[in-house]
Amino acid sequence: MQPSRPTLESEIRRIGEQLARLSAGQSPTMFNRRWWSHAAINLALHDSAFKTQLFRFIDVLPSVADDARVVTLAQEYLGDVTSQIFGAQWGLHAVAATRLGARLTGKAIRSQVEQMARSFIAGSTMVEAEPVLADLWAHGRAWSVDLLGEATISDHEADRYRDRCVKALRELTQIASEWPSVPLLEQDHLGPAPRVQLSLKISALSPHLDPIDPDGSYRSVAARLRPILDVAMVSPASLIFDMEQAETKDLLIEIFTRLCAEPAYRAFPHVGLALQAYHRETQHDIDHLFAWVRQRSAPITIRLVKGAYWDSDTIRFQQRSWPVPLFEHKAETDANYEMLAEMLLTHSMMIRPAFGTHNLRTLAHIEALAESLKLSPEAWEYQMIFGMAEPFQQAVTQLGRRLRIYTPVGELLPGMAYLVRRLLENTSNESFLRKEYVESQPLTTLLAPPSVEGETQETAGTHQKAGKDGFENEPTRNFAEAHRRGAMQAALETVQVQLGRQWTCSSGSFSPTGPVIESRNPSRPDEVIGYVTSARPGEVDQAVQGAVKGWPSWHETATGDRVDILRAAASLMRKRRDELTAWEIFECGKPWREADADLAEAIDFLEFYAMEWQRLALPTRLGHQPGELNRRWYHPRGVTAVIAPWNFPLAIPTGMVSAALVTGNPVVFKPSERSSVLGQLLTGVLREAGVPNEVLYCLAGGPEIGQVLVQHRDVATIAFTGSKDVGLSIMRDAAVVAPGQIMVKRVIAEMGGKNAIIVDETADLDEAITGVVASFTGYAGQKCSACSRAIVHASIYEQFLERLREAVFSLIIGNPNEPGTQIGPVIDSRAQAKINDYIALGKRDARLVVEQVVAGPAGWYVGPTVFADVEPTHRLAQEEIFGPVLSVMKAGSFQEALALANTTAYALTGGVYSRSPVNLALAQQQFDVGNLYLNRPITGAVVGRQPFGGHRLSGVGSKAGGHEYLMQFLVPRIISENTLRRGFAPIE
Amino acid sequence: MQPSRPTLESEIRRIGEQLARLSAGQSPTMFNRRWWSHAAINLALHDSAFKTQLFRFIDVLPSVADDARVVTLAQEYLGDVTSQIFGAQWGLHAVAATRLGARLTGKAIRSQVEQMARSFIAGSTMVEAEPVLADLWAHGRAWSVDLLGEATISDHEADRYRDRCVKALRELTQIASEWPSVPLLEQDHLGPAPRVQLSLKISALSPHLDPIDPDGSYRSVAARLRPILDVAMVSPASLIFDMEQAETKDLLIEIFTRLCAEPAYRAFPHVGLALQAYHRETQHDIDHLFAWVRQRSAPITIRLVKGAYWDSDTIRFQQRSWPVPLFEHKAETDANYEMLAEMLLTHSMMIRPAFGTHNLRTLAHIEALAESLKLSPEAWEYQMIFGMAEPFQQAVTQLGRRLRIYTPVGELLPGMAYLVRRLLENTSNESFLRKEYVESQPLTTLLAPPSVEGETQETAGTHQKAGKDGFENEPTRNFAEAHRRGAMQAALETVQVQLGRQWTCSSGSFSPTGPVIESRNPSRPDEVIGYVTSARPGEVDQAVQGAVKGWPSWHETATGDRVDILRAAASLMRKRRDELTAWEIFECGKPWREADADLAEAIDFLEFYAMEWQRLALPTRLGHQPGELNRRWYHPRGVTAVIAPWNFPLAIPTGMVSAALVTGNPVVFKPSERSSVLGQLLTGVLREAGVPNEVLYCLAGGPEIGQVLVQHRDVATIAFTGSKDVGLSIMRDAAVVAPGQIMVKRVIAEMGGKNAIIVDETADLDEAITGVVASFTGYAGQKCSACSRAIVHASIYEQFLERLREAVFSLIIGNPNEPGTQIGPVIDSRAQAKINDYIALGKRDARLVVEQVVAGPAGWYVGPTVFADVEPTHRLAQEEIFGPVLSVMKAGSFQEALALANTTAYALTGGVYSRSPVNLALAQQQFDVGNLYLNRPITGAVVGRQPFGGHRLSGVGSKAGGHEYLMQFLVPRIISENTLRRGFAPIE
Repeated sequence: MQPSRPTLESEIRRIGEQLARLSAGQSPTMFNRRWWSHAAINLALHDSAFKTQLFRFIDVLPSVADDARVVTLAQEYLGDVTSQIFGAQWGLHAVAATRLGARLTGKAIRSQVEQMARSFIAGSTMVEAEPVLADLWAHGRAWSVDLLGEATISDHEADRYRDRCVKALRELTQIASEWPSVPLLEQDHLGPAPRVQLSLKISALSPHLDPIDPDGSYRSVAARLRPILDVAMVSPASLIFDMEQAETKDLLIEIFTRLCAEPAYRAFPHVGLALQAYHRETQHDIDHLFAWVRQRSAPITIRLVKGAYWDSDTIRFQQRSWPVPLFEHKAETDANYEMLAEMLLTHSMMIRPAFGTHNLRTLAHIEALAESLKLSPEAWEYQMIFGMAEPFQQAVTQLGRRLRIYTPVGELLPGMAYLVRRLLENTSNESFLRKEYVESQPLTTLLAPPSVEGETQETAGTHQKAGKDGFENEPTRNFAEAHRRGAMQAALETVQVQLGRQWTCSSGSFSPTGPVIESRNPSRPDEVIGYVTSARPGEVDQAVQGAVKGWPSWHETATGDRVDILRAAASLMRKRRDELTAWEIFECGKPWREADADLAEAIDFLEFYAMEWQRLALPTRLGHQPGELNRRWYHPRGVTAVIAPWNFPLAIPTGMVSAALVTGNPVVFKPSERSSVLGQLLTGVLREAGVPNEVLYCLAGGPEIGQVLVQHRDVATIAFTGSKDVGLSIMRDAAVVAPGQIMVKRVIAEMGGKNAIIVDETADLDEAITGVVASFTGYAGQKCSACSRAIVHASIYEQFLERLREAVFSLIIGNPNEPGTQIGPVIDSRAQAKINDYIALGKRDARLVVEQVVAGPAGWYVGPTVFADVEPTHRLAQEEIFGPVLSVMKAGSFQEALALANTTAYALTGGVYSRSPVNLALAQQQFDVGNLYLNRPITGAVVGRQPFGGHRLSGVGSKAGGHEYLMQFLVPRIISENTLRRGFAPIE
Repeated sequence: MQPSRPTLESEIRRIGEQLARLSAGQSPTMFNRRWWSHAAINLALHDSAFKTQLFRFIDVLPSVADDARVVTLAQEYLGDVTSQIFGAQWGLHAVAATRLGARLTGKAIRSQVEQMARSFIAGSTMVEAEPVLADLWAHGRAWSVDLLGEATISDHEADRYRDRCVKALRELTQIASEWPSVPLLEQDHLGPAPRVQLSLKISALSPHLDPIDPDGSYRSVAARLRPILDVAMVSPASLIFDMEQAETKDLLIEIFTRLCAEPAYRAFPHVGLALQAYHRETQHDIDHLFAWVRQRSAPITIRLVKGAYWDSDTIRFQQRSWPVPLFEHKAETDANYEMLAEMLLTHSMMIRPAFGTHNLRTLAHIEALAESLKLSPEAWEYQMIFGMAEPFQQAVTQLGRRLRIYTPVGELLPGMAYLVRRLLENTSNESFLRKEYVESQPLTTLLAPPSVEGETQETAGTHQKAGKDGFENEPTRNFAEAHRRGAMQAALETVQVQLGRQWTCSSGSFSPTGPVIESRNPSRPDEVIGYVTSARPGEVDQAVQGAVKGWPSWHETATGDRVDILRAAASLMRKRRDELTAWEIFECGKPWREADADLAEAIDFLEFYAMEWQRLALPTRLGHQPGELNRRWYHPRGVTAVIAPWNFPLAIPTGMVSAALVTGNPVVFKPSERSSVLGQLLTGVLREAGVPNEVLYCLAGGPEIGQVLVQHRDVATIAFTGSKDVGLSIMRDAAVVAPGQIMVKRVIAEMGGKNAIIVDETADLDEAITGVVASFTGYAGQKCSACSRAIVHASIYEQFLERLREAVFSLIIGNPNEPGTQIGPVIDSRAQAKINDYIALGKRDARLVVEQVVAGPAGWYVGPTVFADVEPTHRLAQEEIFGPVLSVMKAGSFQEALALANTTAYALTGGVYSRSPVNLALAQQQFDVGNLYLNRPITGAVVGRQPFGGHRLSGVGSKAGGHEYLMQFLVPRIISENTLRRGFAPIE
């Protein structure tokens, strides 16, 4: 990236001044006094908290059918400012006090916001949009229609978007054919240009657009793109792929190039795609496209934009600890834009450059550049957004340039999301329009070359990369990266050939001699993952006694050494990450991402508990009195039995075992029978990292081993994760003090859940349904955090069920070693049978909404299944199923929904999808669960940030991955020394 | 206090310069190059950490009989510096490596330190001291002999000190009678002055010198003083009462004036007492003494000193949150000294002023003052300490002034404490000698009037009065203050007339209807404290259901309101403090101080938990990622059953109940049957403070009520303090999940202890025995923290037992409403019988060391009893007795002692008396108890500074009065909000 040539600067200034003159006399609608929302925008420009509230209110508005509710929401979001914004003439308070008054007021508010939306959206239908488009044409402006729509969460919705595109192309072709000719708009340097252009949102063409599976994604999207292309070729009309989130960039480019290279389309010159100047890779992408175009028979259009997803991409990448691929500073993006513009202009013989910008400097730069390159003005076009930067639209048109207006058409409801994005753009601190029209910065400043100096980006987190406490979560794999996918495939192949090994875990003289456990692949039960020698119940005592003997030297190991061992284990796991993930995919039937996340969490536990113990190992002085020194120290409790589950076969035992070890306790670890090989692997990693044999015993085996362990008099602590019934029986057993026992046993138990997500009438349904589906079907529902109840407000109940049904139907079930698999098998036939029993029960007593029947594979599959109208007291609504089964219930109010949610004996996770501040606050106060999630899925808690665990019968003990967790393995000791001797104490 | 008259300053300077000239050519022994310890003192002067180590080493030295041990201790304290200090010629490392070498080296070190001690001590016997005293006389110096000795911890030792004084007076009279006459020393302005003067340590004349009981103290001390006075009057010899710790100042003055006003002594002109200029009340005390002298028939001597207990008094008062009665800055003391000196000099017609000082400025000031008052030099005398400030001794003698040398005579072992005090004085930053002889400050500075500017006091804590966290412990009553004693007596009388009332604790519609409990005074079982209506087991459900109903509104009460209620309760307790203490004295048979401490602790719990909840109630943000807001909130768990004991009948239930309440839980409180009235009183206080009826139910009753409560399905938390057996059965019961129960019960149980104190061969036996006695007899051993085992190093075992026996024999048993009572009754006849069974067992199987038989009172008394040679596995050594019974065991090494200490199933408190840094560190690492105390008694943990609780079978749950305690009544909830909507998140 280079700054624009210095020699251009005087030209840029000259042209910029000219454009400024041409744009004079007009101001953008947005900042126009007549615009209803002037007061609101003014406030928003100067008060970012208010801006958030205002835009959130606007966002939720179209979801709310009830006009009276609009008024209460306005109050919730905006409080007393409401009437100031929506016009004192409405006398909001007075009128809204009556039900009828509220309805009238609500209607008024809604109509004001609709009016605002109409500034940016040409119409809700093509019929409505027709005069707007015609008017643009008549004023010498081309357009590109963008069909607004909900997010696509099912094949059905993808089909509908395809059909809308086809229909729009036909209608637009018909409409435009009757217009007079405007040569500037119909011909460019490479030939005729169609009057019709459609911008396509590729993610709307498939519910399976997922960079982890480019082939599957391509198949799904291309099948729906071809009919659109076919129509476009006939019209003719041009098609532009809009660019979306950074995660799908490569995938969209791949889909574009693969499809447009297909024989049927390789000669079609009216396709193109948008590229984002804020993306660090765009230069590389353009190079790559140039090379590709050279091989293709026809030119393409490249629409260069700055990029509209900066905030969300930055946030999402930061949340996952991935390096953010976008430029951090707006000025860097601007500079990159100028450099990319030059790339495009200098290659205009093979592409059609289109410049999307509302920045006077950028416009002037392109003009100066083209001039210096001696390009004819028809060789490029400008694109601006409908309703934005009208003065600049006027200026470039008057200058005789081709201008295309990006024109959204669609319903108000999905359009509102679009509206909010536009408002954000206009009001952001980096907005050029804001700088010119609100802050009235001098023209010389506005036309100056982009400089990073003094720039700050208006969003959260950019400058907070390292946590206060120095802990950073281990990033999950970004499978959008091809080399990550390749490595995973390779690891699967490597592990495949190791299946069927013998495993025996000895510790010094101790070696188990029980029956061999055959661990099988849930996706292909005839495939044995490994043969593991189990322990006999009679051998438990040997292991515990060994641990008792090993304890003193381990306890006396320096704190730093134990911390180092955990960190070494984390390093080993990083080194062997893909391999361990592959074992988990094979043994537990977990899809790639879920298995990978388990590894990341295991590493997190090691690092987090290592850091925590460093903190806790230091004595804390209490009090401040002279002559006495009171210090708190933590000492290990003693032998710890870890009884682990199979569903997070590395993360959960790693957490429990490492917490016990780092605090100085010896461990007897019983992995689940169902993930015996992973138990062996984990033990191996820990030993390789330096855990001595005599403080870590691994006993493969079933519940009989666990029971003997729990009852052993020398076991001081029991860390258990598993079912409620087993957990409660452990607690009963552990409460009995055996003869000779000298420590009251402590039980740390994470048990089940019957987790509910409440969806109220203000929820963003796209997100709510995606979130519910992810929460109840992730790892086939085999998580204690999984959603198994959805409690939905009556007013959206049927709509919710309808979209949910389609979304569930669209899920991909298969062998989890395929990257595109969304749902794999359940763990074994026993689990399968139990879940199927619940499904049968549901069919008898509730309304079946959807059941995906799994036909093909031989594994232990259960199709995701949804029941509606489940009685709150029914077993389906009360018992943990641990499979992909969801019960949906209707609630008349949010309070009723909360009451329903709280009716079970569990209190683990819960979720709320709502955009009502009052309801979110109510949930915060009354939704009685250990981990409550607002407006997001309810699984996937991350170490440190979201310590995990529940109460009621869901668990006892403090949360895993939290700052209090290690304490449970420790005994606090207060040592109080009288430091006064012979009348004197050390000076402090 | 006024600065000395400005007009005197030039005179002071002149005289000071003259004294400086007269003192020239000599330097104090302490800073003399020939002094063996020059290197050590040099280091100590410049490195306060080293000074601490050096003085601590010197302090422990005489206790250690084994010369080889001296070498290891030198290494422990001084490490590599050892050989540098004790002379490289000893080749310490090389030689000490062999056992013989170590012995030789040890002997050498010991002899060096003895030599150092001889600088300050005239001899270990009067025979040894005789030539020293004669030499002083020959050089024109009078003397005052001080008999060094161990602390007096028994009547036997008090008698011995009395006998030593009598003997010394006789011997000294005999010795001195043969000396030539020195008129300056034998005559003053008021008449002849005896050659012999003895300084008396009054606290050595009774083990019962306690300001809480002036009458008892007087009786005990005066009985031993009279024989001494009788001899002194005959000799004649003069007697001076040394002043000691601030707490006994008033008492010593009272003893002095009462005794010296007795007809036999009122005419004796050769008595006097020391007064301390650092004490803020001394001016007032002198006024009071002047008035008293006027009424008496003869003059007294007043020895004005600056005061030698500044550090320890300051520390001890600060530890108890009492206002420190001493001046904070040395300069204030110096200024006060000058003012007091003037008071004395202007009253020399009725008193004999004696000025103890080693300060040139002070000396010059007195001279100038006397001159201005035109006093004859015989009207006052100077006093200096043997071995200190020799140059000034020389100067004042040459000036022709009467000088008296304060001359210690006694064994090296107790003398070492004296030596350390002298060393401290000489090396302190405020030491005049240090300023002159080490820092060589200019004479003008040294002679300048005292100024507080720029002064800092060399000790801990002075400037750290408020704790970091804002919590200050409630001070116990300082019963040295007469008005406190009066108030307590009045409260006892007020409560006395209220005994025998009816008590019924209702809550709204709930009112118990069970049998009436008759609560009786353990000191006088025929006295009924109150009649309390108990609850029937069938009524428990009513109370729990009431609490369930009361919960939501209490939970929703604002945090601040609940905090305010606790603080209001604390205020009420402060207001009614003496009254509540009196009830406790009556109902539980607690001595004054112990009952008062229970009130202070109750108030502490209220304030501490209020503060803690303010901290915890605020949500904590976890993580720092943008677009997500993870916050941890704590919510109440639900109905809390509090089952409380009788031994801390206010503090413990106040802690448990208030912790549950402030965190938002409703409470069903069952006080002990044995302190039913106090349970009613506590409930009353809490309700008066604002706890609503429906969230606090008080159920009087026995274990049957507790059991029903524990098993109730709606009880979520059980906070219990009591015996191990009951605690373990509660845990078993609580682990069973009842039908319909939705919360796993949490049990917080403080159970028993079998606490040991280890006394090693380096221990300060005065402190060790006092500490063991206090720890095993406090509240008649009825504390879970009480000591019931002493494990003593073989080399001091018999000596320990011998002194312990005498100390125990000297304890005062009686009705606790008498302030001097040290041991009251046990709680009831059942307890008495049980303890007596253990005593019988001990008599059968162990060596009885002492058993105080309680003859007189009718109450449930058990005399304190000590057994030696108890087998470690014997029931006496393993079971909690809960009475004043101690088992002593012998250990051959510290490691063996630790192993013995750790052999029980309990791990509550423990103690070590040792001056070996290595042993203290070992104990810190290996003494497996919840609260370990080093070199202090093992009971009396204070809230905040010493959170209390044990492990093994001593308890589960985190420590009372600690930062983790409230968590146990709470459920942590993590609320994770996705704050990203429509691609934007609020700016942070």
